[in-house]
Amino acid sequence: MNYTKKLIVAPGSKVRLREFDPAFHGKGAAEQNADEELAAAKARLGELQRKMYGDNQHSLLIVLQGLDAAGKDGVCWHVIGGMDPQGCKVQGFKVPTAAEAAHDFLWRIHQHAPAKGEVAVFNRSHYEDVLVARVHKLVPRKVWERRYDLINEWERLLQVENGTTILKFCLVVSKEEQLRRFAERLDDPHRQWKISDADYKEREFFSDYLDAFDEALERTSTAQAPWFTIPCDHKWFRNLAVANIVAEALEAMDLQYPKPTVNLEQVRREYHSAVGEEKAGGKRKKD
Amino acid sequence: MNYTKKLIVAPGSKVRLREFDPAFHGKGAAEQNADEELAAAKARLGELQRKMYGDNQHSLLIVLQGLDAAGKDGVCWHVIGGMDPQGCKVQGFKVPTAAEAAHDFLWRIHQHAPAKGEVAVFNRSHYEDVLVARVHKLVPRKVWERRYDLINEWERLLQVENGTTILKFCLVVSKEEQLRRFAERLDDPHRQWKISDADYKEREFFSDYLDAFDEALERTSTAQAPWFTIPCDHKWFRNLAVANIVAEALEAMDLQYPKPTVNLEQVRREYHSAVGEEKAGGKRKKD
Repeated sequence: MNYTKKLIVAPGSKVRLREFDPAFHGKGAAEQNADEELAAAKARLGELQRKMYGDNQHSLLIVLQGLDAAGKDGVCWHVIGGMDPQGCKVQGFKVPTAAEAAHDFLWRIHQHAPAKGEVAVFNRSHYEDVLVARVHKLVPRKVWERRYDLINEWERLLQVENGTTILKFCLVVSKEEQLRRFAERLDDPHRQWKISDADYKEREFFSDYLDAFDEALERTSTAQAPWFTIPCDHKWFRNLAVANIVAEALEAMDLQYPKPTVNLEQVRREYHSAVGEEKAGGKRKKD
Repeated sequence: MNYTKKLIVAPGSKVRLREFDPAFHGKGAAEQNADEELAAAKARLGELQRKMYGDNQHSLLIVLQGLDAAGKDGVCWHVIGGMDPQGCKVQGFKVPTAAEAAHDFLWRIHQHAPAKGEVAVFNRSHYEDVLVARVHKLVPRKVWERRYDLINEWERLLQVENGTTILKFCLVVSKEEQLRRFAERLDDPHRQWKISDADYKEREFFSDYLDAFDEALERTSTAQAPWFTIPCDHKWFRNLAVANIVAEALEAMDLQYPKPTVNLEQVRREYHSAVGEEKAGGKRKKD
């Protein structure tokens, strides 16, 4: 399956997450080989990312958003974990601090944009400011309405000025599967602490979130910074889809190992001279 | 082997890296099983680190220093790569910027100290300010001389105030093996770009670096923030040693999954009520 083509939100297209199938998994044939396929995709990811780090010309920003329990954390562990931690940073964004709230909404985000050669993964992001901010009326409509354009312009800045590729993943889980996952946590002593009152309270707003996502995806899926809707009822499919889309984007960068900055021939001569001297020195000592 | 006991620089002890064997690998029996042992150690690391992230009471700072080509980058990829990128950040420190140089030497370092629940890995660190700064006389002796105490006091702050465990690794490679690794890079098109003039120039100062490390380790290996000298001529041993020492430190934290912040019984009732309502709602729709 070409995950990129299959799951991209084509710029300008309508989005209706209500009609999206979160249980989609292609023909499902991949499930039996999912572990091996994921291991292969992670190895490819790691190799490409290390090449990007060496190349030092491009950077990659991965935005993870989605419905609660769809698997943002799971993607970090199972997919992003394939990258070299040197050159790859995961940044979570929680409720803004007082200092952050006293700035424009992109201020705290901008400082975590990836440098050349680096990957930045946002676990939640500036999109919270048109999602939770809209659903819970944290700011008036006229404020969140204008943010779509501000986001597009800011993402364009990263792309134009610093060669940043931006991939945005909207992780979609069905309401039933979400409830099943909450229930799983209830019975798992290792995960009970993850349960918050908010989980259940937010379920009342499930439908409002779908509306908010629809508009966010429609208005901010651009050729340079596309959204992908990822069906997440099957974790194995979710992981495979994200891993392959990221790997395809890295491959499209046409990465090159940089040219040496030194005169290799001269270094070779120096090297052989050093070997000679050290051998001579070593012999002298032994004499 | 108990790597921690074997490789720790006991606080107050003398350090003579000249007499240290960088090719040490215990009985070497582990070499045949090194890949499997490392895979097991990484899995253990990942599990413990994720527990620490949940526990949210401790934090871990890993300092990587060492001689050029000993393998700081290799440790990041082969060992730290076993951790969940969410909650683990690798920070490199290069030549200070003008703004950084206009502050005290710990200013730029402090902002990367790990938050509760997090792991921070420093690839090079504040120790450069008593290593390269001393070897290349970037500051007068009286300036670097007083830094050992300043470092100990700052590390104590992290430990006392934020529950940070600090593990410092000095990666030691022999001068011969270093030269062999430089030569390898010369012939590997994927790694030629990593060669800099500095590599060879720094070799002239190999002995000065050993002196600088000796004093740094002697004066800053404390019970709370010990140094470990890691023999690095064998990469498999280096990786196993670091992975096991970190895992042992995490185990010593006596990590607990935190208690749920919600009333689980109440959540269970709400859950069952939600299931009931949604089922009823679903039926109604179908009617």
